[in-house]
Amino acid sequence: MIGFPLDHVGIATGSISDSAGRYELLTGSACSPIETLPIQRVRVAFVGQIELLEPFGADSPITRFLSKRGPGLHHVAYRVPDIRAQLSVLHEQGLELIDIEPRPGARGHLTAFIHPRSAGGVLWELVQD
Amino acid sequence: MIGFPLDHVGIATGSISDSAGRYELLTGSACSPIETLPIQRVRVAFVGQIELLEPFGADSPITRFLSKRGPGLHHVAYRVPDIRAQLSVLHEQGLELIDIEPRPGARGHLTAFIHPRSAGGVLWELVQD
Repeated sequence: MIGFPLDHVGIATGSISDSAGRYELLTGSACSPIETLPIQRVRVAFVGQIELLEPFGADSPITRFLSKRGPGLHHVAYRVPDIRAQLSVLHEQGLELIDIEPRPGARGHLTAFIHPRSAGGVLWELVQD
Repeated sequence: MIGFPLDHVGIATGSISDSAGRYELLTGSACSPIETLPIQRVRVAFVGQIELLEPFGADSPITRFLSKRGPGLHHVAYRVPDIRAQLSVLHEQGLELIDIEPRPGARGHLTAFIHPRSAGGVLWELVQD
């Protein structure tokens, strides 16, 4: 089998700046600069393989997540060499795709999400460099 | 900074055998044999960097997790070179440790958990080979 690498784990937080120090301590890695993704209505920063996500603007999906579950684990992202090919494979296998077409995400990557209903309750992201 | 590597992401499931195929498809990796950890009252298997956890025996913490949250993301594990030294550092920094002393975990590793209250709502595991 191919063995895609785990790219990152997304963690929802009310404030990247307030929580970055804690994750720097836990991971031994320095926090990256914060990147704002207006279309996704989130702000993100990376601490090693942890992606911290905080709400940006009105009606952010992270605001809804925090209201419902509180801060914590939000998604898992795997890196694939050809995101469109992998989306086709997953669609053919009957998985429910949130994004039929990949879209621009953090760090200039292409990104697409698989619905938790099709991934054992986990919001699953594919990323391609 | 040192930059500890992300070891695995734990996902709670009602049945490893029923869900392994889905994670093999998503990760491109084959599922390992299932390992039973009687003291932790879980059965685990690895699909790439995903650790699938199912309840084992009575009063499994995974049964409680599944009842409360349903299947999905359970914990994040980082690999550290000296787990006792890292536990001391985290304790000195005021983090709440679930395990003061590391204990034997899956794959023959030493393991210790940090309380979600001290890790932004995330159940955080340290592992040492």
